[in-house]
Amino acid sequence: MAKPTPLSGFPELLPAARVVERDVVASLSRTFELHGFANIETRAVEPLDRLAKGGEIDKEIYVLRRLQAGEGEGDAGLALHFDLTVPFARYVLEHAGHLEFPFRRYQIQPAWRGERPQEGRYRQFTQADVDIVGKDELPFHHDVEVMRVMVDALDALPVPPVSFQFNNRKLIQGFYRGLGLPDVTAAIRTIDKLDKLPAETVAELLVSDAGATREQADRCLQLATIRMPDTSFVEAVKALGVEDELLDEGLAELAAVVEGCAAVDRRKVTVEANLRIARGLDYYTGTVVEIFMSGYERLKSVGGGGRYDALASDGRSTYPGVGVSFGVSRTLIPLLADGVLAGSRPVPSAVLVAVTDEESRASSEAVATALRARGVPCEVAAGAQKFGKQIRYAERRGIPWVWFPGEPHEVKDIRTGNQVEADPRAWQPPEEDLHPRVSTGSTNDDGSTTEEEQLQ
Amino acid sequence: MAKPTPLSGFPELLPAARVVERDVVASLSRTFELHGFANIETRAVEPLDRLAKGGEIDKEIYVLRRLQAGEGEGDAGLALHFDLTVPFARYVLEHAGHLEFPFRRYQIQPAWRGERPQEGRYRQFTQADVDIVGKDELPFHHDVEVMRVMVDALDALPVPPVSFQFNNRKLIQGFYRGLGLPDVTAAIRTIDKLDKLPAETVAELLVSDAGATREQADRCLQLATIRMPDTSFVEAVKALGVEDELLDEGLAELAAVVEGCAAVDRRKVTVEANLRIARGLDYYTGTVVEIFMSGYERLKSVGGGGRYDALASDGRSTYPGVGVSFGVSRTLIPLLADGVLAGSRPVPSAVLVAVTDEESRASSEAVATALRARGVPCEVAAGAQKFGKQIRYAERRGIPWVWFPGEPHEVKDIRTGNQVEADPRAWQPPEEDLHPRVSTGSTNDDGSTTEEEQLQ
Repeated sequence: MAKPTPLSGFPELLPAARVVERDVVASLSRTFELHGFANIETRAVEPLDRLAKGGEIDKEIYVLRRLQAGEGEGDAGLALHFDLTVPFARYVLEHAGHLEFPFRRYQIQPAWRGERPQEGRYRQFTQADVDIVGKDELPFHHDVEVMRVMVDALDALPVPPVSFQFNNRKLIQGFYRGLGLPDVTAAIRTIDKLDKLPAETVAELLVSDAGATREQADRCLQLATIRMPDTSFVEAVKALGVEDELLDEGLAELAAVVEGCAAVDRRKVTVEANLRIARGLDYYTGTVVEIFMSGYERLKSVGGGGRYDALASDGRSTYPGVGVSFGVSRTLIPLLADGVLAGSRPVPSAVLVAVTDEESRASSEAVATALRARGVPCEVAAGAQKFGKQIRYAERRGIPWVWFPGEPHEVKDIRTGNQVEADPRAWQPPEEDLHPRVSTGSTNDDGSTTEEEQLQ
Repeated sequence: MAKPTPLSGFPELLPAARVVERDVVASLSRTFELHGFANIETRAVEPLDRLAKGGEIDKEIYVLRRLQAGEGEGDAGLALHFDLTVPFARYVLEHAGHLEFPFRRYQIQPAWRGERPQEGRYRQFTQADVDIVGKDELPFHHDVEVMRVMVDALDALPVPPVSFQFNNRKLIQGFYRGLGLPDVTAAIRTIDKLDKLPAETVAELLVSDAGATREQADRCLQLATIRMPDTSFVEAVKALGVEDELLDEGLAELAAVVEGCAAVDRRKVTVEANLRIARGLDYYTGTVVEIFMSGYERLKSVGGGGRYDALASDGRSTYPGVGVSFGVSRTLIPLLADGVLAGSRPVPSAVLVAVTDEESRASSEAVATALRARGVPCEVAAGAQKFGKQIRYAERRGIPWVWFPGEPHEVKDIRTGNQVEADPRAWQPPEEDLHPRVSTGSTNDDGSTTEEEQLQ
């Protein structure tokens, strides 16, 4: 068997990096559960026609075929899901009779897309989604709630500071309508190009493609440049002199979201209203958000979401929802590659129990059993080599302590060389040595150098 | 959109059942890490030629195809893995330069098989594997180690008692060789049919298909009926009067495994030597094990594994390994369906904070924030209905406590109706209410009725 080569777009982590990913997933789960969100997992596959509604697909979907399918049996009709929203919508419809609404759920799973791999875009990637779904109705205050949950969750992660940039579809639509634009949808689509084109070009396109007057185009651009960390954007929009009921509703909702998220006790997440954010407006119907990570703007957003008035519908009921998704792989793979995050050791063991000779392996096992009974992860040395070799075995794995069984037992901190007598039924390593930790490099805005966070 | 129908063979859990699965996965992970096993995850796909070595496939593999693949572009050459062993072997080869050997890893992930679904056999199913892999060599004591880990792990689970049934390939091979059987492989294959055919028929087949004499056939059957919970099987085998070096080696190894596992401090797992266990002998080279669950013998084994002298090889090095796999889905789906296991509530929330009116929602949020700061999962009521309605909202979700903000604050245990004054900065629910728990029905041999285990 030849040495296998990596598959492009399918990143895989070594054990120490996996420590980081597990820490992040555990931290996200903890926050989501503190806010009452239940965990679910959906199967990896969906019927193709559910992923490809109305035959329209702009995603690169992986379709499944049974290798031993008979002639003409064709595809299994199944495909791997490309996000967690479509499977969640199907789960809600399928299990609605067994769920209580509003239903709060989080889901942390891989998804697959057959697209060309590049930094931040993978063929298999893990996402973390939180959504609240109602049956026939879902009060607006849940928009504020779900965004606060994600602010709280990302603030607790050992990643560089992220910024939540909020907008509201009602605000944009109402503004364009109040402005008297003949084709609101075309205008939204054009403004969405501000990322790639200069403002002057976008203004010209608004005139040529969206039927705007030059003055309307300028006003659209003025709206899109409003970006503020608090509710003062409301005055800024009002100063543009457009009047519309939907605009007012959108302004009130956006102000409530920004205010609610700004009120979360935060260490490093920032929150702002950014009236340029559009985010698939065909899908969203109110609140929208994109999340960016400081120093990693090249990844584009590391998360996003919003309000959708019809996540799903089964003919009798409609299920409105609001949610936000965080790209776990998109965020972590570059941070791990850059050394911004690292696991402190590749093994869970805090202690290596040395073996004096193969005949006494059982007494080394007994020490390990005693340590494990008190929650200390440990392993017994693979061979009864000289102690110096066994210490180097621990060193290579980052195991901080080596235990020497005997009368008396002794335990050595191999970082300092300190060796002391110890009782296997009582000795405990320092709390910070117990589990592998996540170390973070100096990427914080405050210029701090290295900070360590405990796994679990 | 019509109401979706379940996909046969792709079981999905409701939130309360998912509590059980998460508890089981967390418990397995905890034990594996206490024994120094590092967690890894491999990508879901492998190149088809790695899954289908030499064109021989008896598994129902799902092959991937990009939906938007060009004409004649064909399959992506990728397929979903059907177990965790093949991906692990590939991971070891691919990353060998970055791993320290012996490498202890555990892996808890789904796998996929396109086979006909039935109880205990699914198209997507989760497995938990532990393996120890060496580079070029792996001392036998790791066989004992890895089996002890799984005994320890399954003993801690809230499932009915399981039985580890061990055998050893060297023992069988040596016995058959010492007996003078002309075709050892054919004999092993025939004895493997004892599950389905009467002993007399198997004896006849040994004569007709494996070239055994009638006396040799009887001796093979005698060996296969030996089944003992301790090392007394050694004497029983020796009493059959067959002499062979490999047999002696196999006897010593099996005795060490049975003795080592029997010595683990256990509540309910049983251990025995069962000399009928064969388990894909082409693959395994020493220790073999099958795991059965009390009351669920119809599922066949819920786990198994053994020693393989060449997990992988890259031409320069060979990687021998020993491991054991536990079928998480195969075990849990039937137990959940039978009500043997259940989650105590479908939401993480221990407290529902009531809302007096929409104007004071912020003060209810503040109570929730204070509770969360001390690790109490909670949610704020969705609407400001009458308190009776809000209490029923909590009841339907199994949330044990309802908080009424005010001067003074009060909190009610809705199971007893007790309501007391409480301070949001200090009140703590009883430990057992903090997280959803796993309740187990009375399936234990000791006739115990209901036992509850804490989630995490």
